[in-house]
Amino acid sequence: MEPATSRRYVITFSCPDRTGIVARIAGFLADAGAWIVEAAYHADADQNWFFTRQVVRADSVPFDADELRGRFAEVAAEFGPEATWRVTDTGEKKRAVLLVTREPHCLHDLLGRVSAGELPVDITSVIGNHEALRDVVTAHRVPFHHVPFPGPRDERRESLKLEAFEEVRKLVDEQEPDAIVLARFMQVLPAHLCEQWRGRAINIHHSFLPSFAGARPYHQAHTRGVKLIGATCHYVTADLDAGPIIEQDVIRVDHSDTASDMVRRGRDIERLVLSRGLRWHLEDRVLVHGNKTVVLR
Amino acid sequence: MEPATSRRYVITFSCPDRTGIVARIAGFLADAGAWIVEAAYHADADQNWFFTRQVVRADSVPFDADELRGRFAEVAAEFGPEATWRVTDTGEKKRAVLLVTREPHCLHDLLGRVSAGELPVDITSVIGNHEALRDVVTAHRVPFHHVPFPGPRDERRESLKLEAFEEVRKLVDEQEPDAIVLARFMQVLPAHLCEQWRGRAINIHHSFLPSFAGARPYHQAHTRGVKLIGATCHYVTADLDAGPIIEQDVIRVDHSDTASDMVRRGRDIERLVLSRGLRWHLEDRVLVHGNKTVVLR
Amino acid sequence: MEPATSRRYVITFSCPDRTGIVARIAGFLADAGAWIVEAAYHADADQNWFFTRQVVRADSVPFDADELRGRFAEVAAEFGPEATWRVTDTGEKKRAVLLVTREPHCLHDLLGRVSAGELPVDITSVIGNHEALRDVVTAHRVPFHHVPFPGPRDERRESLKLEAFEEVRKLVDEQEPDAIVLARFMQVLPAHLCEQWRGRAINIHHSFLPSFAGARPYHQAHTRGVKLIGATCHYVTADLDAGPIIEQDVIRVDHSDTASDMVRRGRDIERLVLSRGLRWHLEDRVLVHGNKTVVLR
Amino acid sequence: MEPATSRRYVITFSCPDRTGIVARIAGFLADAGAWIVEAAYHADADQNWFFTRQVVRADSVPFDADELRGRFAEVAAEFGPEATWRVTDTGEKKRAVLLVTREPHCLHDLLGRVSAGELPVDITSVIGNHEALRDVVTAHRVPFHHVPFPGPRDERRESLKLEAFEEVRKLVDEQEPDAIVLARFMQVLPAHLCEQWRGRAINIHHSFLPSFAGARPYHQAHTRGVKLIGATCHYVTADLDAGPIIEQDVIRVDHSDTASDMVRRGRDIERLVLSRGLRWHLEDRVLVHGNKTVVLR
Repeated sequence: MEPATSRRYVITFSCPDRTGIVARIAGFLADAGAWIVEAAYHADADQNWFFTRQVVRADSVPFDADELRGRFAEVAAEFGPEATWRVTDTGEKKRAVLLVTREPHCLHDLLGRVSAGELPVDITSVIGNHEALRDVVTAHRVPFHHVPFPGPRDERRESLKLEAFEEVRKLVDEQEPDAIVLARFMQVLPAHLCEQWRGRAINIHHSFLPSFAGARPYHQAHTRGVKLIGATCHYVTADLDAGPIIEQDVIRVDHSDTASDMVRRGRDIERLVLSRGLRWHLEDRVLVHGNKTVVLR
Repeated sequence: MEPATSRRYVITFSCPDRTGIVARIAGFLADAGAWIVEAAYHADADQNWFFTRQVVRADSVPFDADELRGRFAEVAAEFGPEATWRVTDTGEKKRAVLLVTREPHCLHDLLGRVSAGELPVDITSVIGNHEALRDVVTAHRVPFHHVPFPGPRDERRESLKLEAFEEVRKLVDEQEPDAIVLARFMQVLPAHLCEQWRGRAINIHHSFLPSFAGARPYHQAHTRGVKLIGATCHYVTADLDAGPIIEQDVIRVDHSDTASDMVRRGRDIERLVLSRGLRWHLEDRVLVHGNKTVVLR
Repeated sequence: MEPATSRRYVITFSCPDRTGIVARIAGFLADAGAWIVEAAYHADADQNWFFTRQVVRADSVPFDADELRGRFAEVAAEFGPEATWRVTDTGEKKRAVLLVTREPHCLHDLLGRVSAGELPVDITSVIGNHEALRDVVTAHRVPFHHVPFPGPRDERRESLKLEAFEEVRKLVDEQEPDAIVLARFMQVLPAHLCEQWRGRAINIHHSFLPSFAGARPYHQAHTRGVKLIGATCHYVTADLDAGPIIEQDVIRVDHSDTASDMVRRGRDIERLVLSRGLRWHLEDRVLVHGNKTVVLR
Repeated sequence: MEPATSRRYVITFSCPDRTGIVARIAGFLADAGAWIVEAAYHADADQNWFFTRQVVRADSVPFDADELRGRFAEVAAEFGPEATWRVTDTGEKKRAVLLVTREPHCLHDLLGRVSAGELPVDITSVIGNHEALRDVVTAHRVPFHHVPFPGPRDERRESLKLEAFEEVRKLVDEQEPDAIVLARFMQVLPAHLCEQWRGRAINIHHSFLPSFAGARPYHQAHTRGVKLIGATCHYVTADLDAGPIIEQDVIRVDHSDTASDMVRRGRDIERLVLSRGLRWHLEDRVLVHGNKTVVLR
């Protein structure tokens, strides 16, 4: 449990832009006596859309998060049906489920950060389509579920895959997670899960998208002879590797780096980019509009 | 002249933190019908200080900048004597004076950016303690003033230097500039000018401060064997190379870079860092508190 | 004229890899008494190809560059018909022709660097398809040639374009340049010029290729919502924006950057990437093999 | 065990510069039939010193590493008493001992990289002055030794500390390690151990040295208001935080980062910089001359 003074309510809100939005929200918070510790705004002139994120000290407000939600709902309603908003309480820890295959580096990194108190989340379970990573997960006292997926040459591949994804879905949904993290999970989510988990399923792709979408991006990068390689953390949509981008970064390579060197060196960027993107998601800093993100820091 | 719709009023404000500041300012702007196109806030918990920058469309407000200043002064007064604020009008172009010696790269860069419309400023004059850069300045139709400074072995050095600085001061002050840019001006400003131009005199130092303050920073860096070199844009104070930092950046070097290579390669970072820092200053994004800056982007 | 002691012979050589290449070349240089001041090697295991660049003090060798070429030719011949090599003499300054349209920033930057002695090259002429940049070019005492190109709606567009390119070709070829720099020249070179100038025509593309090839890359980047934008310096080939990459770099952007902001901020990266790529080309650091470069630093 | 074809002999050599060194070494290797897969050279003109690193396929040479050492010793002797050299065999895995306190992030990172096969080293033991990290170490099947150190107010502090260091020394030396890594070990090594482990003891300092040497560097950085924070991997010498720098990197911060944020965010850079520096040390890429390193990549 956090100390009472560090507990926060986080309000995010977006709607078509017009005058007076900031005043209305700030006035509402002032009337409630709320002490604002962080406030960020963005007005997108091209799309005429307004975005804000406000963080207030929970102990400055004379009611709880549910009451705040109820009252804020009335304010939000004034801005029409397109307004979207959310109030979260840092006193209720967010929950994440991780999906993995065999590659350990992103999993190791996230487990390490959570155990060091760096990431504000409970990893409630890890689901792997191989047994390979069970030990490290259980050593962190996190439940590991093995859901086998069919091999590439299995003739009943498609139906077995749907069955496997149905099992994954059950295991995920019973956790009611705030984030479903594809931590180098090498299976493509079926469209209905992309839709159902929209805004919660987060993938790390090992290239600087839109370059090198799809399979073996480091090998594609090596063949093209690029001088920087990157990684991209994005929300999963039915359009492969084309969802809203949360974070990206790159690292310099040169002619002496083989494709294997790029695979190894790229891991450093994958770890950083995924952990940053996940942190911002968990802190409610990422607002999605169309196929783009506004990351309010 | 900008088109009427792109003219902005920029309001910056800071004061001791408390609840209701955002609401008061946003309410004031809403009452005036102001269309906010950019808004940034920062609350410094350590120092309990609040900072904001608001940008509104000039054509959304039914009065001019002076009237806005008059009205905002009343709002600001409610927050006590420590509150500081400013309202600027992008319709009135900011003015800068540049001080130079012989090194041309920062001067070239700034003149080029202004002529390409990249930097929102009029360079009203350039003052050099050598004639070397006169031609490039006048080619840009900017007045150049040569103020000779005494050599290092002149026995009347100190008094001649004060006289030279007095001439510089007159040339600067008659321009009433918003920025006095030491664009690789290799003379140390006397304390009284640091004080008089506080918050307007901007220097580019060719190291990643606080490392390698003082003379020949690239040679110091080469001797120490660092793996990155940098540059720092900061406000000038009487304490040499120790004023509030506006912007810094670095570039990778290695053992094959001689001190001369570092001098050459460092210029790329000096240009970038100075032009970014100056831009933010001109856009009223930089609020100084104590010896630190808050850069509201 | 450089001082005699700083004059260098630069030898580049590549061939199928095998044992003894380094020894043969180093032995040849040692026998000639050559003082090696820089030496770089690369063996590409995938392609089984060997690359080297050697820099020797000209005053350490008892004969001139032509004699060195003659003698080295015999060494190179031992490594078969696929071996390629070159010997250049830093005492003979390289020559470059720049092709421009209206965008001034890369032109300004290159002219500034040459006049500051930062880039070892003579810009022998600038060819523009608009008059816009004539003044700045002639101010640097460089000849400017205006070659008009047909507008997009001219019905004789294709034939007029070929005529214009024929005029460009003549103006370029009479300079016998070591580099033909497309410094934001917005016309696509015809295939026969790509072929004729292979390995000498250098383009700056304003994206991190292979993302956003073709027109309006910053607008493409803005639409996709990427978190970094970049620039790519590459050799021109008949395959648009797909030639061997010499250098790339990126800069961070976020949701608050409009497409115009990206255009402005991207210029900083274009300038850096083009000037670095051109420098390495002029210093004979860039060896092309297939569609990739080996940049020996 | 690596496959025979990937086994390498790595030769490093440095001596006062003169003509013919490359030829002599390359000739020696060619005579031995050695297949060079990597070769790097550096000639430092200021210090007139020559450095090289050569990597050859072990299976291309008709004798073992000891025989190669014996033969190379004769070559090296020709270059006088100041020449230093080393021949290592990648078939014999390097060994490292880690020293830790309570901070887990660098330890986690190194253990994770070794278990993923990313770092070519056996961690033979970890020594901690607290019990805190025992579990994670033993989970990786690495022996953990607890050596308690006196608290800051213990009046027998100095003598107890010497005793503790004597125990550390024994535990380290019995492993005959190639690297002694201070992975956020918060004790200052006594001068005699700095001397004894010269060139093998590697520290990660959590600032961009020479800025913010000593205690609490992130707090110093926060107070100064820098815009980038960094980390430095360096060899330990008796002069605190002043040894030869192997690698450095930085990350951008701004006014919204508290000192605690800097501590958290800096860990990402510490991990990267330490793991890179250690890798280069283990791959014999780092040659020390005076107080600087040449890192041959």
